[in-house]
Amino acid sequence: MREVAVIGVGITRFGELWNDSFRALGIEAGLKAIEDANLTGREIDGMYIGNMSAGRFINQQQIDALVADYSGLASNHIPSTRVEAGEASGGVAFRAGVMAVASGMQDYVVAAGAEKMTDLDDSLISSVLDSTSDADWEASMGITFASLYAMIARRIIHDKIATREEIASVSVNSHIHGVLNPYAQYRKAITLDSVLHSSKVADPLGIFDCAPISDGAAAVVICPLECARKHTDSFVKVSAVTQASDTLALFQRSTITSFEATRIAAQKAYEISKIKPSDISVAEIHDNYTPAGIMAMEDLGFFKKGTAGKAILNGEVAVGGGKLAVNTSGGLKARGHPTGATGIAQIIEITDQLRYRADKRQVKDAKYGLAQNVGGTGSAVTVSILEAV
Amino acid sequence: MREVAVIGVGITRFGELWNDSFRALGIEAGLKAIEDANLTGREIDGMYIGNMSAGRFINQQQIDALVADYSGLASNHIPSTRVEAGEASGGVAFRAGVMAVASGMQDYVVAAGAEKMTDLDDSLISSVLDSTSDADWEASMGITFASLYAMIARRIIHDKIATREEIASVSVNSHIHGVLNPYAQYRKAITLDSVLHSSKVADPLGIFDCAPISDGAAAVVICPLECARKHTDSFVKVSAVTQASDTLALFQRSTITSFEATRIAAQKAYEISKIKPSDISVAEIHDNYTPAGIMAMEDLGFFKKGTAGKAILNGEVAVGGGKLAVNTSGGLKARGHPTGATGIAQIIEITDQLRYRADKRQVKDAKYGLAQNVGGTGSAVTVSILEAV
Repeated sequence: MREVAVIGVGITRFGELWNDSFRALGIEAGLKAIEDANLTGREIDGMYIGNMSAGRFINQQQIDALVADYSGLASNHIPSTRVEAGEASGGVAFRAGVMAVASGMQDYVVAAGAEKMTDLDDSLISSVLDSTSDADWEASMGITFASLYAMIARRIIHDKIATREEIASVSVNSHIHGVLNPYAQYRKAITLDSVLHSSKVADPLGIFDCAPISDGAAAVVICPLECARKHTDSFVKVSAVTQASDTLALFQRSTITSFEATRIAAQKAYEISKIKPSDISVAEIHDNYTPAGIMAMEDLGFFKKGTAGKAILNGEVAVGGGKLAVNTSGGLKARGHPTGATGIAQIIEITDQLRYRADKRQVKDAKYGLAQNVGGTGSAVTVSILEAV
Repeated sequence: MREVAVIGVGITRFGELWNDSFRALGIEAGLKAIEDANLTGREIDGMYIGNMSAGRFINQQQIDALVADYSGLASNHIPSTRVEAGEASGGVAFRAGVMAVASGMQDYVVAAGAEKMTDLDDSLISSVLDSTSDADWEASMGITFASLYAMIARRIIHDKIATREEIASVSVNSHIHGVLNPYAQYRKAITLDSVLHSSKVADPLGIFDCAPISDGAAAVVICPLECARKHTDSFVKVSAVTQASDTLALFQRSTITSFEATRIAAQKAYEISKIKPSDISVAEIHDNYTPAGIMAMEDLGFFKKGTAGKAILNGEVAVGGGKLAVNTSGGLKARGHPTGATGIAQIIEITDQLRYRADKRQVKDAKYGLAQNVGGTGSAVTVSILEAV
């Protein structure tokens, strides 16, 4: 199998982008990535698009053809495939692209993610998000996506894995970095107090514990590592991309304070890459709700069970705060969370860090980075490890 | 790259299955396929699910996790990925599975497709189907999916590529075979006259020119060719699977009486497999609307432009009618068309034919078979060539 590199990245601003259409966002991200890779587009021979619910958000299926078409690649008739695994759609698209190049079947691949969520009425948006839980055994009983994570938060507190304050500090950490990211939806620092006293969404979680509803697109260009230097001096190596699944419904698990899919995907990624958790100096984790951030940092092996919360609250995972910086992009909470785009945006942040292009949020001497993308309540998880070259 | 084999197939009855849930159908097809391959399920290390619109049809995203979970594979935490390319979702799932095995990254893969369409209100079903056309430039202008194919039919007649009667005969041919397929939605022969005088959907197309709305699921098990004989004496070789894209909107093409994506995917498949159109003795083509059947038979190289219609009308593509039998399963029109499942159902029919398990619809001495699956109005097309071993 061939080694694979990321040679170009492109991202739009994330936010409530009422003046931009889905296709305009897709084009912007795609063309930026192709340009950054110093390609013309004619070299691209495959496309994988992560998208969660364009069928419901903008009444458009076949995002695969749409994005290939509007990126000017329809004339090449390249195979373009949409992949979906709820909020992990971007991570799964990246994995599909890496697999295609690693196998030797395709050479220059665009892995992208896009979502336009804000065109829909608010009440309907919530129903779309809930559809990544189990429609028959969770959503139909009135459980919302936020309330599933609220139950996780309660259990984390009950089991003394983290305090309410420590859980809330996941959001504070993400916002610290959002201030520094020009593409972030929220470029404003928030206090622990404002998270704790924000309007309740599902007790104990308030609105500041929850990632926002966002529009945005992100794309990366992947090619064989041996070809990367032909196009650019600045690229990163993909050391591993893994994916694992779990039961769709949360109640079917033996524990709800850990996602087994994260642990299994991470374990495989560390094995494949021969990189240890302690080697990682920058990580993008899936903090769609604050308790997910606590779980991720422990499931990925960065902290022992019951110790992540304290480290976050102490500012140890902020840039410059310790050995590992987490969610330097602002995370899902502050950068924004256009569901299908998130997994690719994470890869872009890690790539930027390893290329030393992260500006004011640059992690010093970053050599290895990790991204974790979660679908549903941990029913699909991807873990990617990237390496500076 | 490794050679790949199909070693097991499983399919549900297609139809308006109001008593069966999406997950019940998925389990039935998946378990049948795993059993047919003489596996237990524990050997499966990857899953690709073709599904067009479960988010809208049954309010459920993350079909990837759902199907892995309810097939009893969640305990393995295998990577499971949903892929979508409109009505070509099944074909794209098959291609993703074949790529994964050919690359050596996965060994035993389930490629499946499923759709539960009839739980939704009729008016909403149409809106979902229309969402595979261009939402901004076609659907929003009031164009329905059927009317796009009606325009194609009119142009085919205007350009004297086929007559109205010849177009209608595509449906008659599919129904001849549907009678013989115990899994088909419609097991009833129909006359040319009944197609021509059926209630108009979009002039000139009547209801008997259009594939029905269906529920159903289909699954195949894929593994390296070299491992196939360990499990079964009856398997088929995958000689090629290709995929091509085109503009999302029909009006952007230079012609609407031919799908360039079909021609390009077919050309590549013939090149890769070194098999000629004249070698193929059984083909499953995407006859969602009758004019698509005419185009497919010409774009795939089976007939010269302007000659397919006459051959169909003369009964030459019925089993026993000539050198090539088309849509022996009943096609989309008579077997039924649960969108995401269709591409896999096609692969199953070809596999059954090449394993000599097609019973009363068996094509004598079938050695090579081809399946063509189309998304939208030809914006995504997959072509698969299978070979008896």
